[in-house]
Amino acid sequence: MSEDGTTPRERYRTQIRAEIKERAQQQIATAGASALSLNAIAKQMGMSGPALYRYFAGRDELITELITDGYRSLADAFDAAAGAGADLAGLAAALRRWALEDPQRYFLLYGTPVPGYHAPPDTTAIASRIMATLLDACPPPRAQDRALAFWTRLHGVLSLELAGHFTGMDLDPALLYTAEAESLLRL
Amino acid sequence: MSEDGTTPRERYRTQIRAEIKERAQQQIATAGASALSLNAIAKQMGMSGPALYRYFAGRDELITELITDGYRSLADAFDAAAGAGADLAGLAAALRRWALEDPQRYFLLYGTPVPGYHAPPDTTAIASRIMATLLDACPPPRAQDRALAFWTRLHGVLSLELAGHFTGMDLDPALLYTAEAESLLRL
Repeated sequence: MSEDGTTPRERYRTQIRAEIKERAQQQIATAGASALSLNAIAKQMGMSGPALYRYFAGRDELITELITDGYRSLADAFDAAAGAGADLAGLAAALRRWALEDPQRYFLLYGTPVPGYHAPPDTTAIASRIMATLLDACPPPRAQDRALAFWTRLHGVLSLELAGHFTGMDLDPALLYTAEAESLLRL
Repeated sequence: MSEDGTTPRERYRTQIRAEIKERAQQQIATAGASALSLNAIAKQMGMSGPALYRYFAGRDELITELITDGYRSLADAFDAAAGAGADLAGLAAALRRWALEDPQRYFLLYGTPVPGYHAPPDTTAIASRIMATLLDACPPPRAQDRALAFWTRLHGVLSLELAGHFTGMDLDPALLYTAEAESLLRL
């Protein structure tokens, strides 16, 4: 056992799972989440299909792991911003930075649902952690309404921007986004 | 030639194209737009791949046609509502009805972009027709801001609702949607 109490076998397993997830993300970026193929990943990695299934029980488990990673990364970004004293506008800016950093990840969490995939309850728990940080930053009264509008209004702008709907319009998405973030305080 | 000036051959072609589009929509609903396979559709229809390519030059042309149909259907729903005297709230209600009627169509237009697909300029033209109807219904001043917020705020609520993000929350999406539609008049 190493200093952190893991065995070589456990570290190897973690490493392989990380590589599988990385290749899955590449596949999603190239062909979409619905085209995710565990057998294709196994082939790329020089493994047999059944060998790969020892690391992930199936497509849904792999997608769940990617979605969970995504929510955790957003929750971390929110916590870091809130820890540095960010108010609602600061959290909005953190959300936009996080979304622009990796649009595919954003769409995996908040875009078109992957056909046939059902999220297990534990991804809902991390989503709730994000909501809690948000609620803390919302000035009363109507903190709940503001948190909800934060989510829907900013998602509205972000998702249309990331999908390219503003292209060719005489419009600065960053300004629109900031205006929507400010609108929350007038609720 | 028939009374509407089409030849049997043209009518047959229209019919085959409609069947291809219908099967494409089924595929998108089952496996996602990125998994769309013209060869699979050809097989279902008892045609060879090359025969099907006489009706659609490729995957992108088929997706463009489905997206164009979607925009046209939304433009028609908006025009019908506006023609019946709908104000901004009425147009918002028309948008929600149209979206709930066929969430897959909604996501094809406004959800995660299909990897590798690029919309040609002519879908942008129909999107502009929708925007024009919307602008007409927006009371001045700030008609432009209201039309834009109509799009981003209502899309924010609708897309999160249709993707199931409000499931398990003590929340009526219809009420939230109406509140967001009303918020546009206070801009």
